[in-house]
Amino acid sequence: MRDVSIVGIGYLPVEKATKLSLRQMGARAVQAAIEDANADRVDALFVGNMLADELQGQKHLAALIADEAGLRDIEAMEVRAATASGAACLRMAYLAVASGEAEIAVAAGVEKMSEGIPTPALSKALDVEREVRDGATLISRNADLMRLYLDRYGLKDDVLTGFSLNAHRNSRTVAHALYKKPVTARAIKTSRYISSPIRLLHCSPICDGAAALVMVPTSEARAFSPHPVKILASSAATDRFRVDDREDPTWLNAAYLSAGRAFRRANVNREDIKLFELHDAFSIMACLQLEAVGYAERGEGWTLAERGLIVPGGTIPIATMGGLKARGHPIGATAIYQACEIVLQLTGRAGKNQVRDAHLAMTQSIGGAATTVITHVMGV
Amino acid sequence: MRDVSIVGIGYLPVEKATKLSLRQMGARAVQAAIEDANADRVDALFVGNMLADELQGQKHLAALIADEAGLRDIEAMEVRAATASGAACLRMAYLAVASGEAEIAVAAGVEKMSEGIPTPALSKALDVEREVRDGATLISRNADLMRLYLDRYGLKDDVLTGFSLNAHRNSRTVAHALYKKPVTARAIKTSRYISSPIRLLHCSPICDGAAALVMVPTSEARAFSPHPVKILASSAATDRFRVDDREDPTWLNAAYLSAGRAFRRANVNREDIKLFELHDAFSIMACLQLEAVGYAERGEGWTLAERGLIVPGGTIPIATMGGLKARGHPIGATAIYQACEIVLQLTGRAGKNQVRDAHLAMTQSIGGAATTVITHVMGV
Repeated sequence: MRDVSIVGIGYLPVEKATKLSLRQMGARAVQAAIEDANADRVDALFVGNMLADELQGQKHLAALIADEAGLRDIEAMEVRAATASGAACLRMAYLAVASGEAEIAVAAGVEKMSEGIPTPALSKALDVEREVRDGATLISRNADLMRLYLDRYGLKDDVLTGFSLNAHRNSRTVAHALYKKPVTARAIKTSRYISSPIRLLHCSPICDGAAALVMVPTSEARAFSPHPVKILASSAATDRFRVDDREDPTWLNAAYLSAGRAFRRANVNREDIKLFELHDAFSIMACLQLEAVGYAERGEGWTLAERGLIVPGGTIPIATMGGLKARGHPIGATAIYQACEIVLQLTGRAGKNQVRDAHLAMTQSIGGAATTVITHVMGV
Repeated sequence: MRDVSIVGIGYLPVEKATKLSLRQMGARAVQAAIEDANADRVDALFVGNMLADELQGQKHLAALIADEAGLRDIEAMEVRAATASGAACLRMAYLAVASGEAEIAVAAGVEKMSEGIPTPALSKALDVEREVRDGATLISRNADLMRLYLDRYGLKDDVLTGFSLNAHRNSRTVAHALYKKPVTARAIKTSRYISSPIRLLHCSPICDGAAALVMVPTSEARAFSPHPVKILASSAATDRFRVDDREDPTWLNAAYLSAGRAFRRANVNREDIKLFELHDAFSIMACLQLEAVGYAERGEGWTLAERGLIVPGGTIPIATMGGLKARGHPIGATAIYQACEIVLQLTGRAGKNQVRDAHLAMTQSIGGAATTVITHVMGV
């Protein structure tokens, strides 16, 4: 198995509603990443997307984007795991290069949520026969988890405020982030309930985005880029599909398993990780992930935010460029944005958001109500 | 890169409408394959499916099927390339094992087309903005190709009869095939037009099916199975997305490229191939594939059927268990059925359909109107 490095990144600014078509978005991100890598050809394109079937009425997206980007004759496929589809496609591009089947692979995520109402299509990440039929949505399932968590540990619903606060503070200086205006703790605490106890400002936004990255064997990386980033581990795990089938729904076992496998493969300890781009689609997920990965005891994930440990200068910086909450969460593209941001951080190109001494980072992406969790560890 | 072998297969009978749910179908095929392989665990499940988003309103299918099959904690993802989704998932499972990331991987295809009307969802394999908007469907695009072919070479529309005839003859003795009743040449030639010049009996049927296979490193294969089958090459290629953008739409360039790459990787010649499970969703596709892969000159693919060379005792047997036409074409499952049938042929377990001296076989799956073509070469 060959070591694999990222040698090019490309992304569009996250927007509420772009004027570009889905295929144009994908093609531009792909072209930008290829240009950044100074690559003169590509062997394979893997695309992450969740909602085009419904919102654009389009399947066969990887071949379509390859064509739009002018990439002729190449391999092109979509890889999916619901809301973790971007990370799934990143992992497949990684396997293509690691196996020796591709010398230059592109992983691209793209989602245009501004066409139509994405919520019903998003709910298909849940068990349609046994959850959606009963009225569940991804939002209501996260609200269930948050309620359970608050009740179990006797907490008020504003204890998670610090997660959104950190995200919005960090995104102010990020050119590609959706939100750049300051958001106060008071605004978060008093924002309207979306699905109690989840408030509007505990939620990531509906938005459009596309991002891509180029991978090559590490042995060839310097020929493409002066600052390659190595993928030290890639790992995926699943939990019982339905939240209700889990012994303890507030324990994200797939996050625990996926991170543990990744740490072992990368041969690193969780204390060595300098920043963690996690899946803060809802603040409760960020909190539970921090517990599952081991940065806090059960019931104490929220204290990391409260104590200021998740900020750029803290012990475990998260959402360093705004995260899903404030950079935005264009579903299938999100994990590729996360990876691009980690590349910027690890190569000292994160500007005002630079995390000091960032040489090792982790990203984790969640499919459905934490059914699928995909972890990548990257380093320089 | 490790060599990879198939050590277990499992499949349901193809039916017009099964009583099983989609998840049950997938889980049963997966369990049957695991049992066939005598495997006591699985690391990863890759699922091929095209239509569940629309027909079952369900995404996140790999994790759902893993849960239903009782596979806990494992990696699970969907891989897609429109109508070639089964082959795409086969390729990804292959990469997972070849790279060393998985020791035991399952590729499963599943499609339940009997719930709802699949045609509109199938058309999403085409360019929705520039083809579907103008009224094109996968069927009409294949009709366009057939018309172009017949006109260019001055042929009547019954010259393709031999393809359906061979498929239906072969399926009569196949337990898992959809059609087992004899079909005459006259019935094919006089069947009603679906989309002229395509007649009903030039088309594969709408049906339900699920199939799975287990892959391990070749070095471990004998510990699982007395008759492993080696994957000698896996290859994917794309053409210009729209048929109209191609220089010569009757030349399937992605089939040409994908087969060429596979032959080089497997280090075999096309003459060595003992059977070819191709993508006869429509007879014209079978004809054009035979030309693109090099078994006939341009404009002469149909003569292979006419001269009886595609039958089990011929020079290049195709659809040896009925193919898409008569075994059935449950989209996302089809390429896995093809692979399972090749395993049966290469291990001398094809019963009355056994191709003599079958030691090397090829399968090719097509996404959309020959936009994506995925080839696998297998041998014993």
